[in-house]
Amino acid sequence: MLRTPPTLLAASSAALTEVRSAGPLVQCVTNTVTVNFVANTLLAIGASPAMVDVPDEAGPMVRAASAVLINLGTPSAEQRDAMLETAEACAHAGRPWVLDPVAVGGLPVRTALGRQLLELRPTVIRGNASEIRALAGAGTGGRGVDASDGVEEAVDDARALARSTGGVVAASGPVDLVTDGETVIRISNGHPLLTRVTGGGCALGGIVAAFTGCHGETLEAVVAACTAYGIAAEQAAATAGGPGTFAVSLLDALASLTAEHLTESGRIA
Amino acid sequence: MLRTPPTLLAASSAALTEVRSAGPLVQCVTNTVTVNFVANTLLAIGASPAMVDVPDEAGPMVRAASAVLINLGTPSAEQRDAMLETAEACAHAGRPWVLDPVAVGGLPVRTALGRQLLELRPTVIRGNASEIRALAGAGTGGRGVDASDGVEEAVDDARALARSTGGVVAASGPVDLVTDGETVIRISNGHPLLTRVTGGGCALGGIVAAFTGCHGETLEAVVAACTAYGIAAEQAAATAGGPGTFAVSLLDALASLTAEHLTESGRIA
Amino acid sequence: MLRTPPTLLAASSAALTEVRSAGPLVQCVTNTVTVNFVANTLLAIGASPAMVDVPDEAGPMVRAASAVLINLGTPSAEQRDAMLETAEACAHAGRPWVLDPVAVGGLPVRTALGRQLLELRPTVIRGNASEIRALAGAGTGGRGVDASDGVEEAVDDARALARSTGGVVAASGPVDLVTDGETVIRISNGHPLLTRVTGGGCALGGIVAAFTGCHGETLEAVVAACTAYGIAAEQAAATAGGPGTFAVSLLDALASLTAEHLTESGRIA
Repeated sequence: MLRTPPTLLAASSAALTEVRSAGPLVQCVTNTVTVNFVANTLLAIGASPAMVDVPDEAGPMVRAASAVLINLGTPSAEQRDAMLETAEACAHAGRPWVLDPVAVGGLPVRTALGRQLLELRPTVIRGNASEIRALAGAGTGGRGVDASDGVEEAVDDARALARSTGGVVAASGPVDLVTDGETVIRISNGHPLLTRVTGGGCALGGIVAAFTGCHGETLEAVVAACTAYGIAAEQAAATAGGPGTFAVSLLDALASLTAEHLTESGRIA
Repeated sequence: MLRTPPTLLAASSAALTEVRSAGPLVQCVTNTVTVNFVANTLLAIGASPAMVDVPDEAGPMVRAASAVLINLGTPSAEQRDAMLETAEACAHAGRPWVLDPVAVGGLPVRTALGRQLLELRPTVIRGNASEIRALAGAGTGGRGVDASDGVEEAVDDARALARSTGGVVAASGPVDLVTDGETVIRISNGHPLLTRVTGGGCALGGIVAAFTGCHGETLEAVVAACTAYGIAAEQAAATAGGPGTFAVSLLDALASLTAEHLTESGRIA
Repeated sequence: MLRTPPTLLAASSAALTEVRSAGPLVQCVTNTVTVNFVANTLLAIGASPAMVDVPDEAGPMVRAASAVLINLGTPSAEQRDAMLETAEACAHAGRPWVLDPVAVGGLPVRTALGRQLLELRPTVIRGNASEIRALAGAGTGGRGVDASDGVEEAVDDARALARSTGGVVAASGPVDLVTDGETVIRISNGHPLLTRVTGGGCALGGIVAAFTGCHGETLEAVVAACTAYGIAAEQAAATAGGPGTFAVSLLDALASLTAEHLTESGRIA
């Protein structure tokens, strides 16, 4: 398939329209720190979040979901069981799911869990450069939840990870890098204030799930999600007086984002 | 007792004044997604939230509480134990408690828990139409946390549920329906943006508990809570630029809401 | 060491500058109610929060942290294990840590845990007057999470607690009281809206950890944190329309706070 920036921008606009009209149900097994923000960003973009994360419910919920997010931020014992149950249900039902490997590499419980989940072949992996490198078996593991590696240092690992899982990998940073193992796409939308609000990355994981649940072509869906989220962040930053007003405005901007905004402001290379 | 819209409006205004002067301590055993928003809406209306949800503390806490909220949104094993302990302590101490049966019907763990809690006779049950129907043993169980049934379809089930528990049942939607099994009251305050913010329903559950803890007549207290919350939502929506600013403004509106606002803007039938 | 209000103000300004330049990694084992707000206030002040709270990760994380917050707000069984593991790791590594004994005294599980943690000698204890009195073995235990004792009633208990732990104790209220067991310092910055937002105290606990992780002299670091937070609250309240906009503006104010603001507006006695 020929993928040029203009065709990707057109696909991104189409994907946003699909999310708006479908209102995908996105199930999330995610951390307690940013679960509220992830739910609110999903509602803002037009999706319907279902934060179902207890064993014996998380698996059955997959049947009703369009897509699933599994985020390793605060992996309690019950959540770990629920995550494996959910990923297995996704594999069984052919449901797309996104793995957000928060702080994998630096911390033992989630690193072991991340490797287990990797064997269930996530449809998309979205993390920062250090997390992507750690999942691919390289890198330094970051500093807490923050990346210590740059996105460009992660290109080879991201491609290798995508090839080994058969999925799409997105490494977030000042420039977002998205790859299916062959094509490497760079999106330069976004704003530094996203790093001054907790959940700036987690929320993108949810948005990626929403787009992946609506748009059949996964690479395009992930590019569309990163582009939409980045543009909304730029719009929010334009009027924000700091990180507090930025987070609030980001929800408003996601809710009012249009397909035209994507075509006009998307920076895809 | 004769209940006409004017007498209910007068009772609602009186109940808000009671909440402001009493500052009721409202204990909540509630989900991790919206616990922060529930606490902040309680503080805004003038109550004092205590989110005590671990076993061996949740039960003893009841003694100090004016009213209690039990919300099934993310029922971890420890929370399930704490919920049963809390509801039993409420039954023993004669303390009013509100059951918010989030997504009951569609998911097995909480559905079983909801039925157990029902036997302890909640003072108030507040849910969406699908949740109310599921608790009453009917309906389709909703779509995740969203209702797939309309409020009017739930009238008979809500009345039957109220009669079987001896409590008051509130089914939330574009029009809120409140019944004690005999009288059916409809409140048409509110705003669609409440469905674009996570916790729009959960927060109402907390507000219902606050009013029930102050105002002796339960049906009136629930009507007052729904009316107050709906009017605050209308005020917040009037200046909101989207779901982000709406949620923030809702807290400001709850804090500045007056008894006069209820009398002037309440739409009770 | 001679401590006069002018020298403390100068030290506070210096400490803020140190936080901004160091960007300390602050590990938090904290409650689910306000964990998002604590993370966002840490990001706003310039720190890097890591909310790592599961056993077998919480202890190892200490090595990478500049300082640690342990907050007893929702002490689940796993968190209790993680808290003890974390405090022991801090003791072993000589890492400063802050204990926030939420509602200790009134509730049995956290009261027992608080006493265990006390034996590991927290670098700082920050609570309201009732919590400080309860930890010191006195007082009435407060009303839920709210203080029923005034700060001045807690002076003797705060000093005794500081002497017995060898640390610094901060009792928060309309006036904040900070003591190392000898010197007693009072800071009268702040605003009543802090009590109308959930996490007003929890967030200060995080900020205290951030300052303690950067500034070597603990008493000065705690005074600086209380002063900085109180001034930011005053700035936020100046434009807030209620508790919702206040919480948002507080994040903006923390992010834009300067060393000059502290020198000009700090009220230390």
